[in-house]
Amino acid sequence: MKIIIDAMGGDNAPGAPVEAAARASKTLDAQLVLVGNFDAVQAELNKYEYDKSKIEIVHATEVISNHEEPVKAVKSKRDASVVVAAQMLKRGEGDALLSMGSTGALLAAALLIVGRIKGIMRPAIASLLPSAKGPKMLIDSGANTRSKKGNLLQFALMGSVYMKNVLGIKNPTVGLISNGEEEEKGIELVKETHPLLKAAPVNFIGNIEGRDVMEGTADVMVCDGFVGNVILKTVEGMGHVVSSKIKEIFTSGLLSKLGALLVMKGIKSFRKSMDYREYGGAPLLGTKKPVIKGHGSSDAKAVYSAIKQAIKFVETNVIEDIKNTIDTLEDEADG
Amino acid sequence: MKIIIDAMGGDNAPGAPVEAAARASKTLDAQLVLVGNFDAVQAELNKYEYDKSKIEIVHATEVISNHEEPVKAVKSKRDASVVVAAQMLKRGEGDALLSMGSTGALLAAALLIVGRIKGIMRPAIASLLPSAKGPKMLIDSGANTRSKKGNLLQFALMGSVYMKNVLGIKNPTVGLISNGEEEEKGIELVKETHPLLKAAPVNFIGNIEGRDVMEGTADVMVCDGFVGNVILKTVEGMGHVVSSKIKEIFTSGLLSKLGALLVMKGIKSFRKSMDYREYGGAPLLGTKKPVIKGHGSSDAKAVYSAIKQAIKFVETNVIEDIKNTIDTLEDEADG
Repeated sequence: MKIIIDAMGGDNAPGAPVEAAARASKTLDAQLVLVGNFDAVQAELNKYEYDKSKIEIVHATEVISNHEEPVKAVKSKRDASVVVAAQMLKRGEGDALLSMGSTGALLAAALLIVGRIKGIMRPAIASLLPSAKGPKMLIDSGANTRSKKGNLLQFALMGSVYMKNVLGIKNPTVGLISNGEEEEKGIELVKETHPLLKAAPVNFIGNIEGRDVMEGTADVMVCDGFVGNVILKTVEGMGHVVSSKIKEIFTSGLLSKLGALLVMKGIKSFRKSMDYREYGGAPLLGTKKPVIKGHGSSDAKAVYSAIKQAIKFVETNVIEDIKNTIDTLEDEADG
Repeated sequence: MKIIIDAMGGDNAPGAPVEAAARASKTLDAQLVLVGNFDAVQAELNKYEYDKSKIEIVHATEVISNHEEPVKAVKSKRDASVVVAAQMLKRGEGDALLSMGSTGALLAAALLIVGRIKGIMRPAIASLLPSAKGPKMLIDSGANTRSKKGNLLQFALMGSVYMKNVLGIKNPTVGLISNGEEEEKGIELVKETHPLLKAAPVNFIGNIEGRDVMEGTADVMVCDGFVGNVILKTVEGMGHVVSSKIKEIFTSGLLSKLGALLVMKGIKSFRKSMDYREYGGAPLLGTKKPVIKGHGSSDAKAVYSAIKQAIKFVETNVIEDIKNTIDTLEDEADG
């Protein structure tokens, strides 16, 4: 098992990915490849104790930033860390790829270099969101601005496989995001997708609404990437506002600080349950090999979670199972 | 000034609307009309002290529930409270209409009975959401499932008038909800609307993302009703989960309860700032007379806020100013 890490991607790179890899080398059963500027990565690595037999650095001279046009950057910067990492994945020099860098660049590298699973029209970003009932998947949370019903059907199938294999949820429920629970409500895309999901081999529970996102009504929440991106960022933004407000309240005076001490345990466990760092990253579903997008603001803890997730992504044969699901459906359609 | 209240609409009707009206009769400078079952309303009213000279009951025998097809119900139930209330508003027997009942029925009654302002293609529901920077408007939050660029332009214009007049915000900022801040990002509707807003007489600050919703980046957030409904309900659902989680933490033991006492003031002010009941209801913008949709779960406090809001809606001449804005634009287009 070998996990390829884009060591130059993300707000805290190369510090956070390197620190996480150092820790993982001592605790997790996997080889780790850090792709990035050799000297910068080695300098970071020297700060930590790590298992030298399990970490390898692969030099890459360039970096793709969030501000570059992704497809153009991936095509022109052949020695960018994410490009080199994707090429290694394609060649089988690793089992999964993790990057905290530009989402667009990772998507482009995954599509152009790693390639799609046969039969999958469009890969999707599958974000894991906190909810009152544990982590739930929002797919597509932004890979495609617009989608068709066939895409949404595939998102539901792929998301179900991931939630079953990686999160261990038996028969994960699938909800279709709409502006009302009634079957006849929604935009055209929703109305067209509803019967497809009803007939598909997934545990479809019908249309769900925005309020269901945090209530955790469905394990897999299906929508197009525009709506998904807006939901994801609304939840992230609200989490941020609530979190900083709670902090403000608890540090606003001596009595409040004392009060904070008394409820600290509960608040901590609540914040933990709402903390994206606990959930690892967002798997990209539909590519030939496992690719995970870590949050851009990931610290070492978040990267470490994502490394664990990448290992599980590989171990539980998500890609094989997605292939089989798609093949079975196509065979049925042909027969 | 006379506010017409659908006394039979909402989860807590007729109790909550009647209690709010009783209170308003003693504190606010407006006549109040309660439309609904006379005996039921009078029985509720008898529970409170109120100013008899300021409250009138208008009998209506029917009620439209959330489960009825709105247009059909409004057309067939001629004596439903919301229908009778809308007819009164149309005839000038009141200055504004407030209902906590079915959104669809209120919309249908507003469109079919009260009518649209000349030049306004589609009225929109303008919800006021809490944010780190105070209440912000989300328009359209669900009146129309799909919209065109011309609709979104009108939403921006109407929303700006409302935020300026009723909330007293000078030169309110307008943001267009998209999946990225970059002008070239977004679905077709967003790309088409962007230049229209740039050229319009509004304080357009460009595209905004989901994270801006709770951060309060823009005073008026413009989107189609499908996306708006999903955002609104996501925020409501998250508020609900966070609120009940905080309650759970603070009641989980003696020490926590003591801790809660010490931070109570801060928590209360935070919960208040996130409480929809403080913001009144969602104005329906684009109809010939002021119509407000109160939250279905409104208690008396929320209805009271909405009555105050209805008074301000009338007093600040929102409708006149919307008419003038639209006329000016059309004159310019003609000239």
